[in-house]
Amino acid sequence: MGLEGQIEQIARDAHEAARTVASLSTNQKNAWLARCAERLEAAKPAILEANQQDIREAGEKGLAAPMLRRLELAGRKWDSMIDGLRQVATLPDPVGEISQMRVRPNGIRVGRMRIPLGVIAMVYESRPEVTVDAAALCLKAGNAVILRGGSESFHANQALGAEIRGALADGDIPEAAVSLIPTTDRAAIDHFLKLDEYIDLVIPRGGKGLVRKVKRDSTIPVIAHDEGVCHVFLDASAEVEMATEIVLDSKLRQMAVCNGLETLLCHEEAVQRVLPTVLKALHEEGVEVRGCERTCQVFSEAVAAADADWREEYLDKIVAVRVVADLDEAIRHIQVYGSEHTDMIVTNDYANGQEWLRRVNSSTVGINCSTAFSDGYRLGLGAEIGISTSKLHSFGPMGLEELTTRKWVLYGDGQLGA
Amino acid sequence: MGLEGQIEQIARDAHEAARTVASLSTNQKNAWLARCAERLEAAKPAILEANQQDIREAGEKGLAAPMLRRLELAGRKWDSMIDGLRQVATLPDPVGEISQMRVRPNGIRVGRMRIPLGVIAMVYESRPEVTVDAAALCLKAGNAVILRGGSESFHANQALGAEIRGALADGDIPEAAVSLIPTTDRAAIDHFLKLDEYIDLVIPRGGKGLVRKVKRDSTIPVIAHDEGVCHVFLDASAEVEMATEIVLDSKLRQMAVCNGLETLLCHEEAVQRVLPTVLKALHEEGVEVRGCERTCQVFSEAVAAADADWREEYLDKIVAVRVVADLDEAIRHIQVYGSEHTDMIVTNDYANGQEWLRRVNSSTVGINCSTAFSDGYRLGLGAEIGISTSKLHSFGPMGLEELTTRKWVLYGDGQLGA
Repeated sequence: MGLEGQIEQIARDAHEAARTVASLSTNQKNAWLARCAERLEAAKPAILEANQQDIREAGEKGLAAPMLRRLELAGRKWDSMIDGLRQVATLPDPVGEISQMRVRPNGIRVGRMRIPLGVIAMVYESRPEVTVDAAALCLKAGNAVILRGGSESFHANQALGAEIRGALADGDIPEAAVSLIPTTDRAAIDHFLKLDEYIDLVIPRGGKGLVRKVKRDSTIPVIAHDEGVCHVFLDASAEVEMATEIVLDSKLRQMAVCNGLETLLCHEEAVQRVLPTVLKALHEEGVEVRGCERTCQVFSEAVAAADADWREEYLDKIVAVRVVADLDEAIRHIQVYGSEHTDMIVTNDYANGQEWLRRVNSSTVGINCSTAFSDGYRLGLGAEIGISTSKLHSFGPMGLEELTTRKWVLYGDGQLGA
Repeated sequence: MGLEGQIEQIARDAHEAARTVASLSTNQKNAWLARCAERLEAAKPAILEANQQDIREAGEKGLAAPMLRRLELAGRKWDSMIDGLRQVATLPDPVGEISQMRVRPNGIRVGRMRIPLGVIAMVYESRPEVTVDAAALCLKAGNAVILRGGSESFHANQALGAEIRGALADGDIPEAAVSLIPTTDRAAIDHFLKLDEYIDLVIPRGGKGLVRKVKRDSTIPVIAHDEGVCHVFLDASAEVEMATEIVLDSKLRQMAVCNGLETLLCHEEAVQRVLPTVLKALHEEGVEVRGCERTCQVFSEAVAAADADWREEYLDKIVAVRVVADLDEAIRHIQVYGSEHTDMIVTNDYANGQEWLRRVNSSTVGINCSTAFSDGYRLGLGAEIGISTSKLHSFGPMGLEELTTRKWVLYGDGQLGA
């Protein structure tokens, strides 16, 4: 059987296994999660050795240091990966929940029951822990999953996958419930993205190139996790201290995350009172300020921003800063340059806060808080498979519930349509 | 400007207009619906004349009589189209509704607000009233809409569209909120389906060929309204009278609808007691019975079914009938041959009813009722844009709510992620 034939077989088997996974009880799924944690801990030395092999090979290929760090599985990353499995076990099972139950005038009772999506394909890069996270979340939500990790973490992914599948077999669950694509061959992956007969959803996580390629080539529905050009808008009434803390946290809490601040907008009436303090604090933390003309007037360390800066996801210690005439101009800037990801206002004005929440149609919008809150854990989802920038199905941070759909369930006693 | 350039301009204008539509108040949208009804009534003679022109031209091209009937806009169809506009005005506006509001441990309040999807493209065939229905529902849910109707109803669609757009202009709403693609040129439509930068969702409604073409060629997310191979399963405990009424209603209430019964399954233990009565009633109504071997034994008018019959969406006075050993075999049959549309059980057995609702993962599943209940009106949605056979975003009958998405809204007082 050729490579394409093998991949098609994996998809067909996953489709078949999905029926079993959809029927597993919550106890069965939680027991599997516990077995995964045990087996991974027992196999830790061999897995970390496979991980080291990936890192050595990537180093020889000249991968940059930040990329090499993303490959690393040892230390705190390992512990939080194992913790994650135990946490997913504690989360409520979304499958089977019935909502919106109502009685129709003819006495029929109708409601909507949560059911798994079926087969989910994850296409991701570098970070090997995604193999474990994605398998845990997809299965807990009752789905089979097909994992296609990056070539640079091939050995670690295979080693992790073997334990996850072993934990399935130990519980008499078909191993096809979690599959790994055994190749990084490009043509084979293109073929994979056309298997909409067997696969219900594909989630790409990685760089822009990967996400766009999947969106372009897939006939399977895609939920994209694309870039975040996130904004904080300092309104005329913004308090200096709160503004400074929120801006620093949004920009610096963690580098290279999609919910980090990239463009700071400031109301003209707050320029003198608030902006220099905020920019000084950023500058002291080593952040480069790229400002509009007005910004450069009030903050001499700023360099002039080009138009391209307003569209840039720096993922680095750089911030673009623009002064706007009013709330309306701030919203207009976001509509033109933003990526519909995460946008916050700092204000003490009731009407402006309400207007912000109503008119800025990004996946997460908020008043007086850090952009860091665009995050499944901080929003209380308990876990996160990613942050969707697709409006269909789920917009923003996605947890277990977002890995399911709903069917209509009807309780009749002989009702007819006529 | 070439045709492709024109279409791209329409999409760009719709994208821009969508911001205005998203901000309209419920009163503004309802006033537009009322103006549409008034203008359409005033222009009725001219619109019906355009409709007659379509029907004449289609007749000259040799279109079959049932297709010609679908083109017809006069009589009851006109009245229900106008009534539909007034009903949509009475439906609650989904935009702005906040749900799942909760307070996180650090005091930040988070919730999810319903917002429009943006720009929706409808691609449909023949029935000109879809032009009005789709515009009404998409706009009430806060979206701009681009309509691409079939060539056979071109003149009626243009005439209807002119009034709808006139009603927009009368209320100072950008006319680009409702656009009609001014061509049925194939290459231009292919180009249209790639405009994912401006269009958020495409809904194809029509024959299998159309739906598959759109799914294959679109880079815009698609919610498909595909075929319905719907089942009724007569369990061992099914009551004869209820079984007969439900089967007749499911098969005959309306012909050529996707929620009509196509395959009847019968538990072996109900064969002698129930099946002959049910099949006799169908036969008396002129329905052809295509049965498995066992069916042909107990009902002499049945003809032998081929394997292909189990996959067939007849949309006609034909029913496939199969006897199964038990509930499990019935569910297995549906998993293999069904289309995940609508499947009902007739039973008086509590455990079997529960198992049916749990294990049959079609978009509408029910106990002791007609397949006709897979319908937005009968389920209480108040309106229906179609019945989705896509699991993503919305599965089953879709109303106003399904034409929106949700964003996260955060109310903080200085919370940081650190």
